[in-house]
Parts: sequence; C-alpha cells; structure tokens
Amino acid sequence: MVTRHAFTRRDAILYALGVGAALGRAVDARALRFVYEEGLQALPTMAVVLGYPGFWLREPRFGLDWPRILHAEQAVEIHRPLPVEGAVRGETNIENLLDKGKDKGAVLYLRREVFDDRSGELLATVRQTSFLRGDGGFGGRRDGGPEPFPIPDRSCDIVLESRTTPEQALIYRLSGDHNPVHVLPEVARRAGFEKPILHGLCTYGVVGCALLTHLCADDASRLRRLDVRFSSPVFPGESIRTDVWLLADGKAAFQSRVVERDVLVLNNGYLEIR
Amino acid sequence: MVTRHAFTRRDAILYALGVGAALGRAVDARALRFVYEEGLQALPTMAVVLGYPGFWLREPRFGLDWPRILHAEQAVEIHRPLPVEGAVRGETNIENLLDKGKDKGAVLYLRREVFDDRSGELLATVRQTSFLRGDGGFGGRRDGGPEPFPIPDRSCDIVLESRTTPEQALIYRLSGDHNPVHVLPEVARRAGFEKPILHGLCTYGVVGCALLTHLCADDASRLRRLDVRFSSPVFPGESIRTDVWLLADGKAAFQSRVVERDVLVLNNGYLEIR
Repeated sequence: MVTRHAFTRRDAILYALGVGAALGRAVDARALRFVYEEGLQALPTMAVVLGYPGFWLREPRFGLDWPRILHAEQAVEIHRPLPVEGAVRGETNIENLLDKGKDKGAVLYLRREVFDDRSGELLATVRQTSFLRGDGGFGGRRDGGPEPFPIPDRSCDIVLESRTTPEQALIYRLSGDHNPVHVLPEVARRAGFEKPILHGLCTYGVVGCALLTHLCADDASRLRRLDVRFSSPVFPGESIRTDVWLLADGKAAFQSRVVERDVLVLNNGYLEIR
Repeated sequence: MVTRHAFTRRDAILYALGVGAALGRAVDARALRFVYEEGLQALPTMAVVLGYPGFWLREPRFGLDWPRILHAEQAVEIHRPLPVEGAVRGETNIENLLDKGKDKGAVLYLRREVFDDRSGELLATVRQTSFLRGDGGFGGRRDGGPEPFPIPDRSCDIVLESRTTPEQALIYRLSGDHNPVHVLPEVARRAGFEKPILHGLCTYGVVGCALLTHLCADDASRLRRLDVRFSSPVFPGESIRTDVWLLADGKAAFQSRVVERDVLVLNNGYLEIR
C-alpha cells in the first residue's frame, strides 16, 4: 500500500505542539527548534504520521472486528533526519500475522517504509503491532513475533518528567488521527474508558520528546530508534514519569507510568542514539 | 487590495485552539462545537484571519517606520455566520489616515470586507486601527476618527474569567501571524517587552470566546459585532478578567484586565448579540 503525503513546516510545528514539545519551555531556545520556522527540526517521532495510510483495518472488505483492535506496539527507526517540509511516500506492508486463538485474538505486524518522494532516500522504518482481539482462531501460526525488549532488573539511572494538558488530544489529532475515542465522551465510554483517552502515539511522542531533550540535548538528528509496547492509555492532562536505564553503545531501556494513577503506560521501551 | 484565502475545518479548529476555545473545557459538549469536525462552528472572531492580506505596511515601498507600528483597535461585524471551510475574498481599503503630529504619529484606519468567494455574499466587515508612531507630521487632517465606545460609570454586571497558556502564542501564530515578537525573547526585548507577548488578536479571540460562551450560550451565529481598543499586551500564560456591562437591545460594553498584574489590556469593548 503506497501513501503519498505532502507536508509543510506548519504541519511539523503542529505535530510538535501536539506532543507537547514546548510545554513548560515556551521561550527556551532549544525548545524553539521544534516550534519555530527558522532553524526548525522535525521531531523523529513525527515519522509515525508521515505517509500514514489511515485506519484501513476499519474498511468493511477486510471483515475485521475493528472496534476491538488495540494498538499494541510502535517502533521507529530513523535512517536520515526527517525533513521539516516536503513530500514523502509511505509503503506499508504486512510483516506477519499470528493467531493467538479464538479467545485471545490475532496479532498483526505492519511495516511502513517512509521515503523522501523526491530523492527516493529511505528516511524511516515504522513498525506497528496491532492486537485484533476479535479475529483470532483462523488457524494461523501462533508464534514467531519479536520478543519485547527486556527492562533491566535493577534501579533505573534517570527519571524524566513529562506533562500533558487536558487539550493535548485536540491538538495532536490535527496531525491526522481523527478517532473520536480521543474527543467524544460517549465514544470513549462505549470503548470502555471513563473519558476520552490520549492517542497512544501522542504518549509515544511526549515520551520521545523527553528522551530527546535529556539524552540527545534536543538534537533531533541523534535519535536513531525508539520502540515501545503500549500497556494502558493516558488521560489528557496527566503527568508521565519515565524511568530510563542506560545501556552500552548509546542504547537505553525505558518504562513510562502515569504519575497520578501509578499505572504503567509504556513498557519494554528501547532507544538508540547516535 | 484583494486577498483570496482557502481554508479547511482543520484551520478553523486550529484557530479555535489558538484562542483557547477548549481551555479547561476539553470534554464539554458545547466547547466541542469549536474544536471537533462534526457539528463544527467557526468562531466569529476568526474573521480577523480570513482574507488577511498580511503585514503589508512593512513593505519598503510605503516608507513607513514599521517597527514602531502598534495595533490600536480591532472591530468585527458579522453579517452571516462564518463557514467552517471554503474560500473567501478579502478586500482591504484605507478608510482614513489622521495626522496626530510629528511627536505623536499617524493613525491608519483599514477596513476589510470578507466575502464568500463562491456565493459572493458579504460575511464580515473587519476594521483595524494602527498607530504609526513614527510617521506623523505629514500635514494631514488631525481629527475625524470614530469615538471609542464609552464604558458605563457604574459597577459591571458580569465578570468573566479566561485563561491563556504559556504555549498560546505558539498555537495562535499557526493561523497566520508570524511576527517573531510573539516567540523570540530577543525580538521581544528589542521591542521593549521583557519577554514574548501574546498577539493582540489572540487576546481579542480569548475574550471573544468568553463572551460567546456566557452571553450567547456558545452559539456562534448570535455574535454580531465585537469591537475593542488595545491598551497593553498580555503575556502568554496570564489570566484575563473581563468586566461586562449589559446595555439595552442585546448590546454590552466590556473591559479586560490581566489578573496577575491588574493591567488593563482591552478597553472600550463593545458587542452586539442577536
């Protein structure tokens, strides 16, 4: 599946505001790199919205029980710093489909390669795992998915704090994910939540910003890889604490929790920096 | 001067988020009218960014001392509810130019009529007064500007509270006013401010939202006119208190102050509701 996508500096800034890149640091020169036209850098996590084909699993021809689909994992590998404007081509492929049984569901692994549409260069590889809770038991292979990155069995080395605002999902969704579960209280309730939830990919971007600030000195070109497993949603306005374990060779593991409820939201986090 | 301008629902939502339409009311069904695609209403104050010709007074051919220009007054008259998407045509004309003398400067009155570019219908009349502090003494007429609307000499009837956030100017500017005085600390300091200031038109929109909520029950079609005189800038993150005097025939006068510094920011406010 090929998706062409043109975007402007305004879109790159709006993505950064959507993941709270300037929260609490509005006149900080380093934060301005992500929200002001001159000297603008694209956040590496913006790869998740570039060349995004939309929520095609929802289309009737696939016959999926789409309201029960959960976003389970997200991984981004950056090959070249993302442009702040231009046009990209996203090529989405199914990498694997596992069958965990009728009661548990199926697990779908998608891989999207994002190319600069002019130069043809590969910018990023975006992997997304979805848990199709209502679509297991079709007789497929059960095992073979990648193992989640292990969290070290010791105290973490660094603790990072992030904020979100009650309006965060309203801004984030302008980058292209219009699922009403993030806005409308009745849709959120039908999906089993007490109120609208933050986009998992917004949480991913919020934590990505904190990691970029503290481990890469806000230099977008230094983040090479960022993988997470989603454990539980964040509600807009909550605070997020990220525990980081520094490993060898510019690698690190991390976990993120909502401070107010002490609930794990991102698990098996893994990043690589240059 | 004719300016054509196409805009989308996303732009209308971004304008509303820029003026804090959802601040503190993210899951309030009435607030969602301004920030969610379905049932979307355009805020009446969005007229100030529709068909806007840009800061053309800055162009060298006019020979103005543009860094010393101040936005003095803003008035919007809504003839028909603004569309949430479409194309408009802005026709900007000079209505008057007064000469207050070499020491005081000149006062420029601009009028912009905003038409629906398809139907040709007049949507709004937008008036803007600029104080050209460095361009007086050219021998022009001194008097003849409209009188500011008088604030009644009695206690106000209603007090409205509005919030802004430290990131407010970063969101508002995506609606088209990219003056760096609202972002860059050094540009703000050179202009005589301790830090970046909120756009006057953002303050105008913030207060417009509060008036719309409390006097028009968030029904955008009911606000017919909103005029203000700018007294002093707001810093992003400050709170605004608006005192409202109810008058006869759906009219009202108002004044807005920054709560934290008790400074008057909007004076001679006047509105008409349907």
